Amino acid sequence: MAARGRVTVNADLAKERTSATFDVENLTHFIDGGVAATKRKRYLQDLAINDPELKNSKPWAVMTRKEQYETALRKHIYMAKRLEEMGITDERDKLNYKEAGANHESSPIGVHLSMFLPTLRKQGTEDQRKRYLPLAEKLAIIGTYAQTELGHGTFVRGLETTATYDAKTREFVLNSPTLTSMKYWPGHLGKTVNFCIVMAQLYTNGKCYGMHTFLLPLRDLSTHQSLPGIELGDIGPKFGYGSNDNGYLILNNVRIPRENMLMRYAQVLEDGSYVKPANAKISYGTMTLIRVGIVTNVSRCLAQSCVIAVRYSAVRRQTEVSPGGPEAQILDYQTQQHKLFPLISTAFAIYLTGIEVYRIYNGVNNNVEQGNLDQIGELHGLSAGLKAFTSSSCCLGIEVCRLACGGHGYSQASGLPKIYVNAIPNCTYEGENTVLYLQTARYLMKCFTKVQMGEKLPGFVSYLGTDLSIKSTIKSDVSLESLLLAYEHRAARMVKAAAMNIQGLVQEGFTQQEAWNKSTQQLVWATMAHCHTYVVKTFTARITGSNLDDQTKKVMTALCKLYGVHGMVENLGDFIQDGFMNASQVDTVTRKLMYLLAEIRPNAVALVDAFDYPDQVLDSCLGRYDGDVYKALYEYAKASPLNNKDVLDSFNTYLRPLQGNTGTSSLAKL
Amino acid sequence: MAARGRVTVNADLAKERTSATFDVENLTHFIDGGVAATKRKRYLQDLAINDPELKNSKPWAVMTRKEQYETALRKHIYMAKRLEEMGITDERDKLNYKEAGANHESSPIGVHLSMFLPTLRKQGTEDQRKRYLPLAEKLAIIGTYAQTELGHGTFVRGLETTATYDAKTREFVLNSPTLTSMKYWPGHLGKTVNFCIVMAQLYTNGKCYGMHTFLLPLRDLSTHQSLPGIELGDIGPKFGYGSNDNGYLILNNVRIPRENMLMRYAQVLEDGSYVKPANAKISYGTMTLIRVGIVTNVSRCLAQSCVIAVRYSAVRRQTEVSPGGPEAQILDYQTQQHKLFPLISTAFAIYLTGIEVYRIYNGVNNNVEQGNLDQIGELHGLSAGLKAFTSSSCCLGIEVCRLACGGHGYSQASGLPKIYVNAIPNCTYEGENTVLYLQTARYLMKCFTKVQMGEKLPGFVSYLGTDLSIKSTIKSDVSLESLLLAYEHRAARMVKAAAMNIQGLVQEGFTQQEAWNKSTQQLVWATMAHCHTYVVKTFTARITGSNLDDQTKKVMTALCKLYGVHGMVENLGDFIQDGFMNASQVDTVTRKLMYLLAEIRPNAVALVDAFDYPDQVLDSCLGRYDGDVYKALYEYAKASPLNNKDVLDSFNTYLRPLQGNTGTSSLAKL
Repeated sequence: MAARGRVTVNADLAKERTSATFDVENLTHFIDGGVAATKRKRYLQDLAINDPELKNSKPWAVMTRKEQYETALRKHIYMAKRLEEMGITDERDKLNYKEAGANHESSPIGVHLSMFLPTLRKQGTEDQRKRYLPLAEKLAIIGTYAQTELGHGTFVRGLETTATYDAKTREFVLNSPTLTSMKYWPGHLGKTVNFCIVMAQLYTNGKCYGMHTFLLPLRDLSTHQSLPGIELGDIGPKFGYGSNDNGYLILNNVRIPRENMLMRYAQVLEDGSYVKPANAKISYGTMTLIRVGIVTNVSRCLAQSCVIAVRYSAVRRQTEVSPGGPEAQILDYQTQQHKLFPLISTAFAIYLTGIEVYRIYNGVNNNVEQGNLDQIGELHGLSAGLKAFTSSSCCLGIEVCRLACGGHGYSQASGLPKIYVNAIPNCTYEGENTVLYLQTARYLMKCFTKVQMGEKLPGFVSYLGTDLSIKSTIKSDVSLESLLLAYEHRAARMVKAAAMNIQGLVQEGFTQQEAWNKSTQQLVWATMAHCHTYVVKTFTARITGSNLDDQTKKVMTALCKLYGVHGMVENLGDFIQDGFMNASQVDTVTRKLMYLLAEIRPNAVALVDAFDYPDQVLDSCLGRYDGDVYKALYEYAKASPLNNKDVLDSFNTYLRPLQGNTGTSSLAKL
Repeated sequence: MAARGRVTVNADLAKERTSATFDVENLTHFIDGGVAATKRKRYLQDLAINDPELKNSKPWAVMTRKEQYETALRKHIYMAKRLEEMGITDERDKLNYKEAGANHESSPIGVHLSMFLPTLRKQGTEDQRKRYLPLAEKLAIIGTYAQTELGHGTFVRGLETTATYDAKTREFVLNSPTLTSMKYWPGHLGKTVNFCIVMAQLYTNGKCYGMHTFLLPLRDLSTHQSLPGIELGDIGPKFGYGSNDNGYLILNNVRIPRENMLMRYAQVLEDGSYVKPANAKISYGTMTLIRVGIVTNVSRCLAQSCVIAVRYSAVRRQTEVSPGGPEAQILDYQTQQHKLFPLISTAFAIYLTGIEVYRIYNGVNNNVEQGNLDQIGELHGLSAGLKAFTSSSCCLGIEVCRLACGGHGYSQASGLPKIYVNAIPNCTYEGENTVLYLQTARYLMKCFTKVQMGEKLPGFVSYLGTDLSIKSTIKSDVSLESLLLAYEHRAARMVKAAAMNIQGLVQEGFTQQEAWNKSTQQLVWATMAHCHTYVVKTFTARITGSNLDDQTKKVMTALCKLYGVHGMVENLGDFIQDGFMNASQVDTVTRKLMYLLAEIRPNAVALVDAFDYPDQVLDSCLGRYDGDVYKALYEYAKASPLNNKDVLDSFNTYLRPLQGNTGTSSLAKL
């Protein structure tokens, strides 16, 4: 076997590859979006992989935090420069290159690229853009986006930092009036950036106008020393993100010129009078794009974890299946299949959903650029919940993969702890998941009201008008169509139940707000069901509508069914509590789940091979393409820094004294 | 409020404490097992907390691995010595002292104490005990238990290390015949221990007699250098357990005297003839005790996480509940309550289960000591599944607590990442959870066969004979009795369904083994339901049968109901798919869940206060008793080692060159 010229060493893995029933390359092309896209991706990956500048001097897990920071800073600056030199501007190209160069090594200039630059471009005036963009694009100034405060995250209106206009000097005076108002968490704020965009409550002429954005120099450009009135630093070690100097910032009467307010929309004139923006929704853009990006991002993290766990499960043999027989590949155990195969399907489902949502985002964004903001609410309703649903499923899935690797999954050699700790913040940043579910819930409640009034809804929520008296059409084949109908029924029923609960409470005399607050958990459940339906629907549509060859389509159809059936069995109560499915259908679905696991088994390795992650991206002894797992683990162990000496100094300090007069010399005879 | 002389600084937290409806001290006494036990615990905790020898020089998370190892080695040796000096031998006393001295700082002599010494005591001959125990008890020799190999974990019979008897020299020759046979993972094997008990396949007179244990010197006692024929070292960094030098060991014709086989039961005589042990079950003891200990251990990890998350949720305010109003304590949000309160109940439920199972273990163990092995199978069936069920629930719960703390939960300042990474291996070691579920499943299948034959079963499985046609008795009050009946029904149904599935497959012509293999996922589900039932039953019995005062009992009854109701809503399909509960009961239970969250809300802080963990054990800026969270986070940030300098050297290396000829000097005017 020689996909990309790679060699399989392990015999079990080799057998898996020869016995697959479909062409792995075809599926890779499908994932990437065509033969040319795969070729391009591999070209960029190889550029990074073969570049000595992007090799780490030692394993990530044995670096001190300072070493991780310096390594990531060096590599990410280098990669930004290389991409610029090569004239590469496509986001997917950049991602493929950077993933191969520094996978899960959090960039100390990431927020500069993803938030500082876009905000400057979108919210800066022409003067501001002219002045700062060329410098920022060349990294001569590096900025972050300082929103979150020590005591404030989710609720943006609650932020306390103030920017008070002084008409006499035509300056804003920035302050952190309380302990809780210090900026806390912004990426790279601690040590790297010399600028930031700071969000603050705008005061002018004695009145507060709410949150606005300001461009704030933080450090002297030539010495990098923090400027007067500014106290800032790193916030200390985290679960992961060791290479990111997330920081804190306290402002004490820091003055910036009036021109440093980002004034493309709202403005403060020289005399201090306030001009409000034409449309308040306009600033949603960047955040929505990042949320959409998270969908694909977390699916890739899960896909990488699946590659590692599935390959290792093919190599690992454990316990004789029949007495006296050879030990079985753990991939042959139904329980192992039940852990991993639904996750392979999840990775595919959510990856394809990410692509679809990105397509929708681009459409809406084009309309917005042309002044049509109609679909912003819809897009927000879609992206908020999906960010939450997909980051939760994928991150939980990564830990399942890790645990499915047994003891070795706990070693950093597996690569899985690194993936997990760097993926899991996706559940918290850019909108905490529960908060986001409730934002989508608000959208769904509006939609439901429209359904009640007989109004037509956009495509992805149109099912909310489903006739709930119709029973499940699931038969022994468990068709994709019958699965999708079941998911739509479940979500429609749960959305309706949540709405009815709120209406009921209002009728009992509670205010609308109180009724909402007493229904939030039900709303979250309903929204999860809605998002789940969207993913099932998208996965189904992308597979049935694809031009995949028959063999590959057959396997992908089984995988798609598995996604639906597994989610149904996991949430069975939702589907049956109103009698939608009968006992025999429940039995059918449960049997189908086991049947699908067995059906997918022969193609499990081929399916994860199709994700096409080079070993250098996976950075895992267990997930190696060649399957030479045990040799790799042995080499990994030998390289542990604790092994630099056979006898550590601590022996003399702590252990030798224990022998005192205990007479161990009597054992010397042994 | 001044429990243990502590002061509440945060006003919200102070209010929570004054408005609690029960006496926190009473509940603490209940948890600890009486007033005297609480007093004793606090005395031991304070001894550790106030001992300057047990203070860390800097936060755990900023230490290098070598520093973590040296710190833990120093502290754990010191604590062992102090306990010996003080004559403390009670296991609970030791736990309380060590938890206060080095919580979640994995001990580099832990396996010596928990496995090496007990195995020597249980399996060593009188001569061996006389010779080695005095030295091992004084830590003059320190050992580990070397079972797991690079390619072998769960399946003990598959281990490859060999011990071949050479009658000529009366020695055993130990070898690692393959790459996969190297010992890998044993705690402290890499650098700390000078001895180990090694499990190896015994060969004598040309025949293999399976796994036996041998006492093997690894390092020279005076120089600590590894002995000839022995290659060993640390296995490298892991997810957690930084202070533990889990190691690898390769044996190359290492000779040890015949007397180094642990021969209390099986023996090899001088001429090489083999004498088999009287009873093979006898060696189960140590592993069962450790599994039983895990139940309590993981519940404590979850309890600590709940303390942190609940206190922080009382302090943290986020988002106005009604427009323009003050921001609410996040503990007031139903969704936050739904995340945390079931976990408080889980921590209590599993802690009390741990105590109960330990009591049972002691009873069985006493019988075993007197030669009665009848209950060993039962105890194994109970402890295997419970270890799996409780470690899974508690560890998942820790991550839920961490995520419920939003962004700050991701900081090591929260203390939660440290708890998680050190708790999660409980799902893998001492029997991987899925494997253990299937061991208990095997026991349950045997029980079910007995039920079919009309035999009487031991108490905790007697419900398997339940009449499955009886419907749920759940009414609007959702009594504990009706909940327990529901759990018993569910588990009995699922155990029966799994048994029927196997029987059906056998009738279709599959072998017993094939039928089992095709049913393992269903068996795991059934076993989970069984374990869940056991926990519900134990929690209920311990609360209803307690002599708690009425107020406390009322709160604990609500918590106990919450445990049952939440588990039911989470697994609704299991309870309703056979029509056991009707639609109105489902509705009742779902409403009850929300009602119980609201009922527990006023006592949430008091409930976690009752766990009585000192700040030094929690080691968390968010979980402080005084609630002064934000000041603590600020201090934590300032202490980050990256802040030792305002400008890092990396500025000159990587950032300054970016400014080149970009004209940043034009910005100096700003």
